Amino acid sequence: MPTLTKMNLESYISGYVDGEGCFCVSIRPRKGNKTGWEVVASFSVGQKENRAEVLRLIRDYFKCGFIRKSVSDKTLKYETRSLNNLLTKIIPHFEKYPLQSGKQKDFEIFKKVCQKMSKGEHLTKKGLIEIVGLVSKMNPSGKRNYTKTIILNSLSKMKI
Amino acid sequence: MPTLTKMNLESYISGYVDGEGCFCVSIRPRKGNKTGWEVVASFSVGQKENRAEVLRLIRDYFKCGFIRKSVSDKTLKYETRSLNNLLTKIIPHFEKYPLQSGKQKDFEIFKKVCQKMSKGEHLTKKGLIEIVGLVSKMNPSGKRNYTKTIILNSLSKMKI
Repeated sequence: MPTLTKMNLESYISGYVDGEGCFCVSIRPRKGNKTGWEVVASFSVGQKENRAEVLRLIRDYFKCGFIRKSVSDKTLKYETRSLNNLLTKIIPHFEKYPLQSGKQKDFEIFKKVCQKMSKGEHLTKKGLIEIVGLVSKMNPSGKRNYTKTIILNSLSKMKI
Repeated sequence: MPTLTKMNLESYISGYVDGEGCFCVSIRPRKGNKTGWEVVASFSVGQKENRAEVLRLIRDYFKCGFIRKSVSDKTLKYETRSLNNLLTKIIPHFEKYPLQSGKQKDFEIFKKVCQKMSKGEHLTKKGLIEIVGLVSKMNPSGKRNYTKTIILNSLSKMKI
């Protein structure tokens, strides 16, 4: 590993994440929940299996999250899902060292959703509808198992 | 585009390139050349078409190279092939702000090849054999049209 002589590690990490990282909010069915849906926010960074060192660097820098194998495409993934870590470690970093691509817009939405979740808004019908609206504007190229229409239809049928 | 308040742009670019960039040396047949082969060194960075802003940022930062559409996979690519620009602009940047992944090894080989090319060594049989040996250790996951064996076999038949 080269020494970080002139390198600013924080900015390097933002650069790497701008290429390989993902700020995701997934909304999926959950019977136990009052709304019938569960909201999970996660920050992840992918990498080919033979180049794991940057993922370890990122995990050690953020002091949270874990690295796991993605069975689907033989890559490694660093991921953190703890709302507390997202709010206190991940989000503050990208506020100080912002992404320079269009992914910054995803980050801004992600931050809003995490802040709503910290107030428990995702557990109410009203809050969840707002979150669904925000999330529909994120990661336009990504695949969604449950579309905005499916979730809003389901919520419209519930008496909550 | 967010302001670069705490961001160190140089380090951000190294982080982005560590994920999405490529230091490549391609060796391909060229009838006009004494060795029968041509060596082309290039530095490139890929990006989805809908997120071109980082490529423009990189082009403007390095003050060289161009952005083009890759027909094969609908991505955009920033690329610079001028040996002079590689030696005076690209390589010095990554010496100051080194990559943190295994790609750093590719960069070190790339640098050696560019230095040899600047002395014209790629135009001689002896120099080309050395370059072929170096290049065979680069980008192990990439595809090569002409393997080390093919090139060395071709050179062994030539009286130069």
